[in-house]
Amino acid sequence: MSELRKDPVTGRWVIISTERGRRPSDFAVPKKQMKAGFCPFCPGNEDKTPPEILAFRHDGGQRNGPGWSLRVVPNKFPALRVEGDVNREGVGLYDKMSGIGAHEVIIETPRHEETLSSLSPKQFEDVLWAYRDRMLDLRKDTRLRYAMLFKNHGEAAGATLEHTHSQLIALPIVPHLVMEEMTGAMDYFRYKERCIFCDIVRQETQQGERVILENAEFIVINPFASFSPFESWILPKRHKSFFEECQVYEIQSLSLIFQETLKRLEKALNFPPYNFTLHTTPFNERSLEYYHWHFEIIPKLTKFAGFEWGSGFFINPTPPEEAAKFLRELAA
Amino acid sequence: MSELRKDPVTGRWVIISTERGRRPSDFAVPKKQMKAGFCPFCPGNEDKTPPEILAFRHDGGQRNGPGWSLRVVPNKFPALRVEGDVNREGVGLYDKMSGIGAHEVIIETPRHEETLSSLSPKQFEDVLWAYRDRMLDLRKDTRLRYAMLFKNHGEAAGATLEHTHSQLIALPIVPHLVMEEMTGAMDYFRYKERCIFCDIVRQETQQGERVILENAEFIVINPFASFSPFESWILPKRHKSFFEECQVYEIQSLSLIFQETLKRLEKALNFPPYNFTLHTTPFNERSLEYYHWHFEIIPKLTKFAGFEWGSGFFINPTPPEEAAKFLRELAA
Repeated sequence: MSELRKDPVTGRWVIISTERGRRPSDFAVPKKQMKAGFCPFCPGNEDKTPPEILAFRHDGGQRNGPGWSLRVVPNKFPALRVEGDVNREGVGLYDKMSGIGAHEVIIETPRHEETLSSLSPKQFEDVLWAYRDRMLDLRKDTRLRYAMLFKNHGEAAGATLEHTHSQLIALPIVPHLVMEEMTGAMDYFRYKERCIFCDIVRQETQQGERVILENAEFIVINPFASFSPFESWILPKRHKSFFEECQVYEIQSLSLIFQETLKRLEKALNFPPYNFTLHTTPFNERSLEYYHWHFEIIPKLTKFAGFEWGSGFFINPTPPEEAAKFLRELAA
Repeated sequence: MSELRKDPVTGRWVIISTERGRRPSDFAVPKKQMKAGFCPFCPGNEDKTPPEILAFRHDGGQRNGPGWSLRVVPNKFPALRVEGDVNREGVGLYDKMSGIGAHEVIIETPRHEETLSSLSPKQFEDVLWAYRDRMLDLRKDTRLRYAMLFKNHGEAAGATLEHTHSQLIALPIVPHLVMEEMTGAMDYFRYKERCIFCDIVRQETQQGERVILENAEFIVINPFASFSPFESWILPKRHKSFFEECQVYEIQSLSLIFQETLKRLEKALNFPPYNFTLHTTPFNERSLEYYHWHFEIIPKLTKFAGFEWGSGFFINPTPPEEAAKFLRELAA
């Protein structure tokens, strides 16, 4: 069983895997590289993952058998487990909590050689539908406060299996960075009585210099204080707190602009490893006037080292205005 | 000239190098590996670095010539520059500041093949004296609020030159993570009227299970909520706000326990890449009852990916109690 522990100084929570307990020698040998051989996410190997939570089988097929076009399964080596109660406990001045949560894998396509950007538009849209469906389902569990949806693409970005997939980790607490965003947005709202993200969308639309793409519903920008080169945010133009409350036309619109953004990043940066994360309102909140969901895409281009770890301060060698100009002018 | 920009939502500052402006193609080619050939930090190549700020020449020798045993020079490609005023400015809803600061390199030894842990005890102590001297000098500059001292050891930890060195980046603001620590420590002090780090030292000494090493002045622990496996903190046992106010006996004591810690980490983890950072009180503060300087050492053993970037939440596969037991029982 994992344990959540709170840093008493900063208040940040950490997941400590008391179960796996990797010993020093486990780190000394380099972890095995992604291999092209056996893949547990390929059709025919459905029994190599835990039983599916969700699958799209537009052309029929049996549960936990082939025929699916998208499949969601629990992570075989989950960071957190679904069973049990959320127990909070003190240990002297320290605080801990049982490692309750969910850890799911969204297998985005049955085809091993595809990537998110090479999927058909329909298939890309299905990935977003799966994200939405899983969020809607997980928020019913009152023990859970937040579901962090993310993708690691490429080994350097932390992917351990080659077959394209995203992940969802649902947590009994609201993570630190999310709280920080919520608090900052709330402070701004208190003072201005406007959503800061709506103001960002407005200013970026007017200035134009950091805009990559835009359609009826969404805008894609390289944010003013990008911490990483070519960091790209996708924001709905209209104020919405929850991603999982997207309507059909929004998912369709998001799907087109999201895939186009990935294609441009891949063309500009020669298929870089990347991460993306969904930032949305915690489950235990109502619709909020001050918080606005969005996706953040981070191509993995630079190394973060002592300075960044110690300060939380990043050095970005590419101004977002230059990145945006490049991506905007690129025909995908 | 670099620019400091503030993320309007989280309040985090970022350094944007408007000067270097790396274009997409600069990322597409892998950066050149550290090469064993020419080294600008080796004796005889003193003219390949900017003129020295400080050097120890126990056996004599000319300024900017050989004969030194330790040398501090400005970074040739600094993230921030010393010349100019700190101008703060708004751009619509955004905030920016001129990129004023200092970026120095501490070349820890003239010998290319040495590492920090292989230095003689005297030489290791000199490294700490250099840290102290530079901090004392930089704090005189009233434009600067904080100096982040750090080391990147090994390419995977962000070192770009092989010859062992540490770095100091002095900033016109207090970095986010430092503010977060200060605020957390202050909140605790308000409630308890005790320094949280003093309480940590007390509890860890009593419990013992996360203690690696201890001497008259210092304790080395794997902290309760270690975000990274084998993360190790060195704390003075007595309350001290500022590292740079260390006395002779403290530097001597720190030197011994610091080098022993590095030796044990290297033995346990087969010479891992690592980062360390000094956490100390900002220049513009008085001696504080609630903040306690310390070093944090992070062996680079795991990859951080989408989940960590999106949540600020880390998954640590090795409980600190196991790491500490291993390191404690290791004869170095």
